[in-house]
Amino acid sequence: MTTLTDCRARDAQDPLRPLRDQFTLPEGVIYLDGNSLGVCPTATPARVAEVVQQQWGQGLIRSWNSAGWFDWPRTVGDKIGRLIGARPGQTVATDSTSVNLFKVLSLAMQMQAQAAPGRRTLVSERSNFPTDLYIAEALCRERGWTLQLIDAADLMATLGPDTGVVMLTHVNYRTGAMHDMGGVTAAVHGAGALMVWDLAHSAGAVPVDLNGADADFAVGCGYKYLNGGPGAPAFAWLNPRHAARLGDDLWQPLACWWGHAAPFAFTPDYRPAPGIQRFLCGTQPMISLAALECGVDTVLAAEPYGGMTVLRDKSLALTDLFIELVEARCAGHGLTLVTPREHRRRGSQVCLSRTEGAYAIVQALIARGVIGDFRAGDAQQPDILRFGFTPLYLGHEDVWQAVEHLKQVLDSGEWQRPEFARQQAVT
Amino acid sequence: MTTLTDCRARDAQDPLRPLRDQFTLPEGVIYLDGNSLGVCPTATPARVAEVVQQQWGQGLIRSWNSAGWFDWPRTVGDKIGRLIGARPGQTVATDSTSVNLFKVLSLAMQMQAQAAPGRRTLVSERSNFPTDLYIAEALCRERGWTLQLIDAADLMATLGPDTGVVMLTHVNYRTGAMHDMGGVTAAVHGAGALMVWDLAHSAGAVPVDLNGADADFAVGCGYKYLNGGPGAPAFAWLNPRHAARLGDDLWQPLACWWGHAAPFAFTPDYRPAPGIQRFLCGTQPMISLAALECGVDTVLAAEPYGGMTVLRDKSLALTDLFIELVEARCAGHGLTLVTPREHRRRGSQVCLSRTEGAYAIVQALIARGVIGDFRAGDAQQPDILRFGFTPLYLGHEDVWQAVEHLKQVLDSGEWQRPEFARQQAVT
Repeated sequence: MTTLTDCRARDAQDPLRPLRDQFTLPEGVIYLDGNSLGVCPTATPARVAEVVQQQWGQGLIRSWNSAGWFDWPRTVGDKIGRLIGARPGQTVATDSTSVNLFKVLSLAMQMQAQAAPGRRTLVSERSNFPTDLYIAEALCRERGWTLQLIDAADLMATLGPDTGVVMLTHVNYRTGAMHDMGGVTAAVHGAGALMVWDLAHSAGAVPVDLNGADADFAVGCGYKYLNGGPGAPAFAWLNPRHAARLGDDLWQPLACWWGHAAPFAFTPDYRPAPGIQRFLCGTQPMISLAALECGVDTVLAAEPYGGMTVLRDKSLALTDLFIELVEARCAGHGLTLVTPREHRRRGSQVCLSRTEGAYAIVQALIARGVIGDFRAGDAQQPDILRFGFTPLYLGHEDVWQAVEHLKQVLDSGEWQRPEFARQQAVT
Repeated sequence: MTTLTDCRARDAQDPLRPLRDQFTLPEGVIYLDGNSLGVCPTATPARVAEVVQQQWGQGLIRSWNSAGWFDWPRTVGDKIGRLIGARPGQTVATDSTSVNLFKVLSLAMQMQAQAAPGRRTLVSERSNFPTDLYIAEALCRERGWTLQLIDAADLMATLGPDTGVVMLTHVNYRTGAMHDMGGVTAAVHGAGALMVWDLAHSAGAVPVDLNGADADFAVGCGYKYLNGGPGAPAFAWLNPRHAARLGDDLWQPLACWWGHAAPFAFTPDYRPAPGIQRFLCGTQPMISLAALECGVDTVLAAEPYGGMTVLRDKSLALTDLFIELVEARCAGHGLTLVTPREHRRRGSQVCLSRTEGAYAIVQALIARGVIGDFRAGDAQQPDILRFGFTPLYLGHEDVWQAVEHLKQVLDSGEWQRPEFARQQAVT
C-alpha cells in the first residue's frame, strides 16, 4: 500500500509542483471541491483591484476602448479555447452556462428544423445536471420537441430517425463518469443528429479536443476547474463548419447588441454577427470577467510543462491514489466507489456512495478542513460523497491526509455528532 | 443669466453635498456620462477585495451559505426595489438587462396567449434602445407575433384589440424624453394589454413607482445611475398581482436551478419557484454583484435627505441650468435642444443635436476632461451630443464649467482638429 512517505516522495519529484504557487490556499484546508468552486489565484485580487480602481474608477466609460473591455469575451474565450481544442475565434466567455446552453440548443434545434424537420427529439441523460435538463425541457416544451431522457448505456440504441439533437455533459457531475467524446459524437453524427457537449466538469480538468471530435456545439463553466471565481461567466463554442454556414436567418433567441453584425450602428433591426460572435448577448460583468481570465491563466500556466496532458496524468495519479487509500484504509465502513475505475471513463473527481450518513460524513470532514461535497440521492440514485481533484494545487500528501481524516471520522463515529446532521444541502 | 458665483453659492447651500463624498472621481474630470457607466463608489474596492480575498479566497465553497451569496440576487434586488416603488420580494438582481427583458417579455406573451389569444401584437417605440427591439423582434419571430414599432405620440391611437404587450423604455436613451408611467400603464391596461417597462435610464435617476403605476413587469440596468460597475448585473421586477397568480404552467424559458421551486433538490423536472424567484436562472457573478450592491447603496444614502424626490429636484436644477447656460453661452453654434423642456417629460440627461460635428465636439470635450457621449443619427434622427447628470456626484459649478468648455470648444473651432474626427463610436 502507498505510504505517507511514498506520497511525500512523489510530491518532491512532481514537476508540476511550481504551479501550486499560483494559489493562496487557506491554512489547514485540503480543498477537494474545485469541481464546485475553484480556488482563488494569488494574482486575482490585484487584477480585480486594477479593473475596479484604475479601469473603472479612473478610466470610466473610456475603458470600453482603452482597456479593451469590448474584446474580453473573445480574448478570454480564446484562452479557454486553448484548453478545449478550439482555435482562436471559436469560443466566447459570456453569461452563465445555463444561458449559453439555451442559446446553443436553440440554434441546434433551428438548424435541424431547417435540415431535417422530422427530427424533433432531444436526447439527454437522465443523470445529467438537472439545470441542463430544465433548459432542454423548457425549449422542447416551447418548440414542440420531445425530450427523451435515457441511461448512458442506452445511448447508441436510442439514436434513431427522430433524434435531432443529443446533449450530454462530458463528465457526470454526480459520478465523475466521462463519455468518449469522439466516439459518441461520431455515432450521433452517424445517426444524423447534432451533438452538444456541456464541459462544466471537463474544461481545465481533462483534455478536450472539440475540433478533433468534430462536436457541433459546446458550453462550459468558468468557476469550477477554471478557477474564475464565484459565478464567473461561462463559455460557448461553435464548430467552425457551422460558423461558416450560419446565415442571417438563424438567430439564437437572445438577440442583443453584442451579437449584432454591427454592434455600434444601433440599427432598429437585428442582424446576427458571423460565427461565434452571435452568441454574445447583453453587456457582460467586466469585474467578474477579469477574475475569470486570471483563473484561466493558472491552467494555461501548465502549457510549458505539457499542458492538459500532464495535468491529466497527475489528476489520474491523484484519483487512483485516493481510490486505493480509501479502499485499503476505510474498508468495512460501507463506502462504495461510484466513479469508474477505468482511466478513459473517469473525470477528475471521485465519488463514493453510502446508504446512510453521507451528508454527515462530508460535514465532519469539512469541520476538519477537508472540503468535499455532498450530493443527495433519490429513489434511483444513492447519496454521494464527492471529491474533486485539481492537480494544479493538490499533491499526493493532500490525498493521503484527506483519507486519514476520512478514516478517523469513520473509525471514531465522529460523523454521528448532532451538529453534522442533515439540515439543508449547500449548492 | 446664472453666473459662476451663483453656481458656487448653490453648491454651498446644497444639502445633498455630502453624498458626493461617496465617490472618488478622477482629477480634472467632469463626468456627464453616468447614464452610460456610473462612477466607482469609494467603498467598492474594499468590498470587492473582501469578496475576492476573504469570502472566495478563505471561505471558498462555504461562502455560498456563510457569506450569504445565495441570497444576494434577492437582497440586492430588494435594495433596488426601494428606488423603484417596489416592496421586498418583488425584485431580483441578476443577468443582463437584455436577458431579463427576454424573460419578462416571454412570460407576458405567454400570459396573453392564455388570457387573450387573439392579442398577438407587441408594441414598442421605433426610437427604443435597439437591443430591446432585437429581443422583442426575436421573440415575435419565434412566437408568431407581430412587432409594431411606432412613434411615442401615436401610442394611444395604436392600442387596439390585437395589442398584447406594450414594451417601452421609461426614459429614452437618445433624447432623455420620459413617459408618464402611470398614465401610459393605465391606457395600456384599458386597452387590455400588458405593460413592460425598461428602467435602464430611470432607476436611481428619477422617481419611479411601479406598484403605484400598477405596471406588469419591469427590467433595468445596474451600471448606469446605480453605479454598479462595468456590466453590473441587471434587475427584473414582477407585479405582486401576477406573482400571486402565476401557476406551475407559466415558465419563463430560461428555466434553471436558481428559479426552481426547490433549487437544491436537483430533481430532473423543472418546477418554477413562486413569484419573482422564477426569474432567476444560472449562477450569478458574485464579485460583480457585490460591486452592484455598493453602487445601489450610494443612491440609498440619499434616503435620509428625502431619497429620490430630492435627488430629482437637484437633477432638474442641474439639467435646467445646463439648458439655460448652453442656450445663452453657446448661442449661434447650431446646437438644438432635443430633450423636452417640461420637467414631467424629462429624465436626468440633456441631449443636443447638431447637423455636423457632434462626434468631434464630444471628443474635444472628452480631451478636456468633460465626458459626455455621442449617439449617431440616421435618416430619421440627427446625431446627438448626450450629457447625463447624476446629482449624487455633480454640482452646479460642474455644470457651469462643462458649458464653459463647450463654449471654448465651439468658439475656438478646436473640435475641427483632425484627432477628433469620427472613426468608430464607443459603446
